[in-house]
Amino acid sequence: MDKLPIVLDLTGTFVFALSGALAGTKRGLDLFGVMVLSFAAGNSGGITRDLLIGAVPPGAVGDWRYLGVSLVAGLVTFYFSSLIVRMSNAVLVFDAAGLALFAVAGSSKALSFGLNPVMATVLGMVTGIGGGIVRDVLLAEIPTVLRADLYAVAALAAAAIVVVGYLLQLPDALVTAVALASCFLLRVMAIKRGWRLPVAKGAQRSEPHI
Amino acid sequence: MDKLPIVLDLTGTFVFALSGALAGTKRGLDLFGVMVLSFAAGNSGGITRDLLIGAVPPGAVGDWRYLGVSLVAGLVTFYFSSLIVRMSNAVLVFDAAGLALFAVAGSSKALSFGLNPVMATVLGMVTGIGGGIVRDVLLAEIPTVLRADLYAVAALAAAAIVVVGYLLQLPDALVTAVALASCFLLRVMAIKRGWRLPVAKGAQRSEPHI
Amino acid sequence: MDKLPIVLDLTGTFVFALSGALAGTKRGLDLFGVMVLSFAAGNSGGITRDLLIGAVPPGAVGDWRYLGVSLVAGLVTFYFSSLIVRMSNAVLVFDAAGLALFAVAGSSKALSFGLNPVMATVLGMVTGIGGGIVRDVLLAEIPTVLRADLYAVAALAAAAIVVVGYLLQLPDALVTAVALASCFLLRVMAIKRGWRLPVAKGAQRSEPHI
Repeated sequence: MDKLPIVLDLTGTFVFALSGALAGTKRGLDLFGVMVLSFAAGNSGGITRDLLIGAVPPGAVGDWRYLGVSLVAGLVTFYFSSLIVRMSNAVLVFDAAGLALFAVAGSSKALSFGLNPVMATVLGMVTGIGGGIVRDVLLAEIPTVLRADLYAVAALAAAAIVVVGYLLQLPDALVTAVALASCFLLRVMAIKRGWRLPVAKGAQRSEPHI
Repeated sequence: MDKLPIVLDLTGTFVFALSGALAGTKRGLDLFGVMVLSFAAGNSGGITRDLLIGAVPPGAVGDWRYLGVSLVAGLVTFYFSSLIVRMSNAVLVFDAAGLALFAVAGSSKALSFGLNPVMATVLGMVTGIGGGIVRDVLLAEIPTVLRADLYAVAALAAAAIVVVGYLLQLPDALVTAVALASCFLLRVMAIKRGWRLPVAKGAQRSEPHI
Repeated sequence: MDKLPIVLDLTGTFVFALSGALAGTKRGLDLFGVMVLSFAAGNSGGITRDLLIGAVPPGAVGDWRYLGVSLVAGLVTFYFSSLIVRMSNAVLVFDAAGLALFAVAGSSKALSFGLNPVMATVLGMVTGIGGGIVRDVLLAEIPTVLRADLYAVAALAAAAIVVVGYLLQLPDALVTAVALASCFLLRVMAIKRGWRLPVAKGAQRSEPHI
């Protein structure tokens, strides 16, 4: 039972690493570049959170299993990218699961390091979306999450539920389950129904939704 | 009187967050993306400084008011961007004030954490320009500050004055006032007169001044 | 003899700063922008390593000589960029030497901070390639190292040799010499012979090798 958190964390890392590796292969990076994108997408969110709360060295640096899982995802994508592309619907669903896992784990860890409730919620979200942001910055693109369908909002919802549950001292297992389910369902519905946040009227150009 | 520093810091954060939100709405980001740009532009400089000097968690992470001020700036800009654009001259002046406040606060904090004078000056400048750099990197652009009119130099001047004043043990209030005024005036004059630093002769293309 | 490590480290910083300054002058940055690129290219790798292992403030922040060396490299490049361009073969060779020095120094420091062997190897590589990545991100480009000829692999080889030598308790001087020579030769051969890593078949466009 003690091993459940790390298993969930490594699962999330794997799924996010897949997204990084896919983006890298599409841009024509070489094998090493794809590995870097895998690791960055899978671990940047957690590393950023750990640096900000003072958990040094960050989990993904002190424990080699995060690297191992990321490299496996990168290798699979590099050599079987057509397979991963064909499974892209499944990857999206796994990605929603990874987002939920990271947001819950991130806000819990921030609370346990004594952060106030508001910033613990924010750091839960950062844990969920940080990997995708670094992946896109490395590819010299505006991060998808800054203009996409409720991605960050789903992470924020999960993190907020964890923090509220902590403040109300509700049972951990229940809170975790509700938070995971909320994020996952919100994200899946956003994909299916095309739910989006409003865009400012002042926008000079309407770029296509990536 | 004890509350003055935090008031100045939050004022600087608000003004810089406005610049981030404006840049985000212009690029067609959604509501969440604009909020991220607000927070990043308002707080990345201070967060970077705090990570580098070992002040963990950084002020903007441990204290939720920085987030609050950033989100207000983001919301105002998102819903009233035409108003902010019309007030752009006022925003530029506030931005010069924010730069002065951040450079002074940043170098003071670095000195109080025991950094040597040279690097305390540099960290004062980083506090002032870090937010704008992260804002532009997130928008996949070369940071404006790397090719703009005396922006960083004004921050550097303020930080250097603080550090020299500290070394000579001059009265704090006087040093702070001179540093703030120097940065502010230098920046305002640079905008009005179009003062710029030289550009290398070897440049392959002359990009327009943004 | 005690001063050898810092001399090697500053030499590597100087060479990497040259690469950053050259890239900045080519893009038409102003004098300050070129200085920032110099410092970022010369020191981001080491700063990232130090933040991740908890060595705060990082060497390049606590010791002003790293800044000094970076600025000298930036000034030389800014005012004599045609000279640096003409010497570009020499610069490439120095860069290979800098990469070797940084990878060896980085993995040694990570080991001395108690990291496990796998991640110490990775951090050695990060020390070597981090500066170039930040340089390219600041210029809004996909980092060259993610698609170039065995650059990161050479750094990885040096770091791995240091770590293996440490585990086997081989004499330091021997291990360091072998690691430096391996990285340097691998990198020089990769340039001369055009050795590259494979690129994924799924790549949508084949961008030119920069």
